[in-house]
Amino acid sequence: MMRVILIATSIFMYSSAAGQADDSIAVKKIFDETLTNSSAYTNLRTLCKQVGPRLSGSANFSKAVQVVSQMMKDAGTDTVYLQECMIPHWVRGEKETGKIIISGEKDHDLKLCALGTSIGTGIKGLRADVVEVKSMPELHQLGDKVKGKIVFFNFRMNPTYLRVFQAYGESGIARRLGAAQAAKYGAIGVMVRSLAINLNDYPHTGTMSYNDSFPKIPAVAISTNDAEWLSKMLSNSKVVTASFKTYCKQLPDVKGYNVVGEIRGSQFPKEIITVGGHLDSWDLAEGANDDGSGVVQSVEVLRALKKAGTFRTVRAVAFANEEISGTGADAYLAQAKKNNEQHIFALESDAGGFTPRGFRLEMDTAKMQKIYAWNYLLNPYGLYETGPGGSGADVGPLKAIGTALAGLNTDSQRYFDLHHAATDTFENVSERELNFGAAAMAALVYLVSEHGL
Amino acid sequence: MMRVILIATSIFMYSSAAGQADDSIAVKKIFDETLTNSSAYTNLRTLCKQVGPRLSGSANFSKAVQVVSQMMKDAGTDTVYLQECMIPHWVRGEKETGKIIISGEKDHDLKLCALGTSIGTGIKGLRADVVEVKSMPELHQLGDKVKGKIVFFNFRMNPTYLRVFQAYGESGIARRLGAAQAAKYGAIGVMVRSLAINLNDYPHTGTMSYNDSFPKIPAVAISTNDAEWLSKMLSNSKVVTASFKTYCKQLPDVKGYNVVGEIRGSQFPKEIITVGGHLDSWDLAEGANDDGSGVVQSVEVLRALKKAGTFRTVRAVAFANEEISGTGADAYLAQAKKNNEQHIFALESDAGGFTPRGFRLEMDTAKMQKIYAWNYLLNPYGLYETGPGGSGADVGPLKAIGTALAGLNTDSQRYFDLHHAATDTFENVSERELNFGAAAMAALVYLVSEHGL
Repeated sequence: MMRVILIATSIFMYSSAAGQADDSIAVKKIFDETLTNSSAYTNLRTLCKQVGPRLSGSANFSKAVQVVSQMMKDAGTDTVYLQECMIPHWVRGEKETGKIIISGEKDHDLKLCALGTSIGTGIKGLRADVVEVKSMPELHQLGDKVKGKIVFFNFRMNPTYLRVFQAYGESGIARRLGAAQAAKYGAIGVMVRSLAINLNDYPHTGTMSYNDSFPKIPAVAISTNDAEWLSKMLSNSKVVTASFKTYCKQLPDVKGYNVVGEIRGSQFPKEIITVGGHLDSWDLAEGANDDGSGVVQSVEVLRALKKAGTFRTVRAVAFANEEISGTGADAYLAQAKKNNEQHIFALESDAGGFTPRGFRLEMDTAKMQKIYAWNYLLNPYGLYETGPGGSGADVGPLKAIGTALAGLNTDSQRYFDLHHAATDTFENVSERELNFGAAAMAALVYLVSEHGL
Repeated sequence: MMRVILIATSIFMYSSAAGQADDSIAVKKIFDETLTNSSAYTNLRTLCKQVGPRLSGSANFSKAVQVVSQMMKDAGTDTVYLQECMIPHWVRGEKETGKIIISGEKDHDLKLCALGTSIGTGIKGLRADVVEVKSMPELHQLGDKVKGKIVFFNFRMNPTYLRVFQAYGESGIARRLGAAQAAKYGAIGVMVRSLAINLNDYPHTGTMSYNDSFPKIPAVAISTNDAEWLSKMLSNSKVVTASFKTYCKQLPDVKGYNVVGEIRGSQFPKEIITVGGHLDSWDLAEGANDDGSGVVQSVEVLRALKKAGTFRTVRAVAFANEEISGTGADAYLAQAKKNNEQHIFALESDAGGFTPRGFRLEMDTAKMQKIYAWNYLLNPYGLYETGPGGSGADVGPLKAIGTALAGLNTDSQRYFDLHHAATDTFENVSERELNFGAAAMAALVYLVSEHGL
């Protein structure tokens, strides 16, 4: 970090003092404008309360496409259009149920939900004894001993990681690959501890995938409170049986759309800067933080920068189908290639509508250093955490055409209390924090638009 | 900021590399311990749900003294004791009511509350036409024109300030001094726009003071939504009349207590480091962020550092009566003087249980630079915002005996949504953020304990 700041200092010394003052004033104006007149919070309320959950393939997703198109028009864009792509259509079906049965005790109802894209058990349900594993090596060691059982993946998110996404990545292997791994040894179902950092009563869904070499088996998430309780029961050497019924299924893919809004640059209109979030959410909640926030922040970037004026073209994209298979992001890249577009920079917001802390940069060193040279403009707004890191699933594919990529870093301590759960609602987003994030994005996009990259 | 970091770098270069590694490991252990095993969240639940609001002078305040004494014992302290002081005893009385009357329209019920230490109107209430002012100069310009009226102080918190405390300090003049200033010109009552940064339906209370040269007139806060609505009505040039009834009154002072817990230093037990928050809250809510958080974080500092071991003596103090007149803080200083204690450092947490961002330092330059030299240890935990600033109302008096003072900086964007209002509840504190703050405090206290100041 110190080296980075020293580099920033030396650039600072040799560049134009007048230009710096202009940038500083422009950045301040952008923050003032967004903190005072932002559209983001009102738009988020609309997206959460008038549309609600908007799972890929659902009628609500189509409604969201229309609603966000209108938001982009209202932001003063020069053009708004849709980009078609095929999106999956998985449905949860009837209310899922499950319980734990221990001889001599009252049955314990589980707070559970099917994992996204899992097969369902159907009406006849699933019933088997439970085997707990706390790591993947433990599963491999048990091997065939899990045959005919339900494997309980109790991977606690590591509380000592300061960046909660690190714990999510690590423990998330259970949700993503648990069913495929357990099926390999003959398990007939899996229950995964929800990827929540705190203890709560809500099951957290999310996508998973099967391995074509092994049978597809039903997978559910249980709440962290249930996981703690179940682990305690198992540690008492009791025979623990689980049963659950899920009615989810995969229907044929349907048409979906990215929503794209654009303001044309005054000097270099062919150089495109993309800012985006994903429009789809899970079906259990309003998707306020994941990723309604990123969508309405991107719209706000357009609104604020339309006012400020930009040298380069700025596009906001509400991407389709991030949660399941990323076909929206693929379609955006395909269009860019087809039209031979020049994409110089793309910034994603998909870490919740929380206070911004900086940017994760995925680009070559020379470009990173150009961005570090703006630290003196961004540090005063609390943006200290800018450095190398993965940008995001939606802008990621643009790497193929050499685009410099970035992701908004947020203060994500609360994110995994509500991520992919019924608690990811509008009420759990702070207006100030959401606007602050939008302003940070607008400021960085403005600097790239002014100076190139 | 850059200069600060350069200084830190040079000290870094000349100090012992082995010592640095030890400090780095110790700080990591403290964070790990607190993020894994903290007592703070459980203690906060107890303070909020088993005690609840704990206004100075109330029975609940006395209950809180007992409850927090026990928490400090449970934290493994060497000694826990109480420090007596006199505290005010203001009571709100029966449910307050108020409305706006506009000829030809339906009466509008106000969401209001008496300001702390205001006199009440009693059963006969107060009724008069309303005059709005948006700044103090505007009031002075109106002068005697407010005679016989109710002055409506509509001071909106400035949304462009990134540190919301700055807006609170600026607009807060209306709450603190509005009644005294309006009474000077013959107004018979005041209504103050709540000091909330967002628009909501909750009145936010807080202390105010009279000027002995002018009559004492009743003062209430109205919700920000009501303030916006009322301002709109007034801008339509309508005659707007307000009436309200409040039943609050000041009773004789009563005895109260600071709660003090201590772990004795192994090397320099006479050198004392104080860490604290205030035990009293307003009566409208649980005081979860203000300042239950600071109290339970201070207790957690003791618990974590008892485990780590400290060279110097560390004391946690739950101060009495911060909200009204600071007699708890005065009593702590008086005892320190009387016992000729050597207080080298005191750290206050009274900015909510949010993600920590650094420390405000109130000490001489040499001491500040010693703390800046630890930036390399604290930056990895997101603590970038350490610099000069006011420490806090409770540790502040220790300045008189030369103590170096500090306050925990937090990400306070959400603080003034709920500060002094019914929404300042346990549910609005994040376990992770609360623990993170406690860990930051413990780390700084540990470094001062190891190295002196």
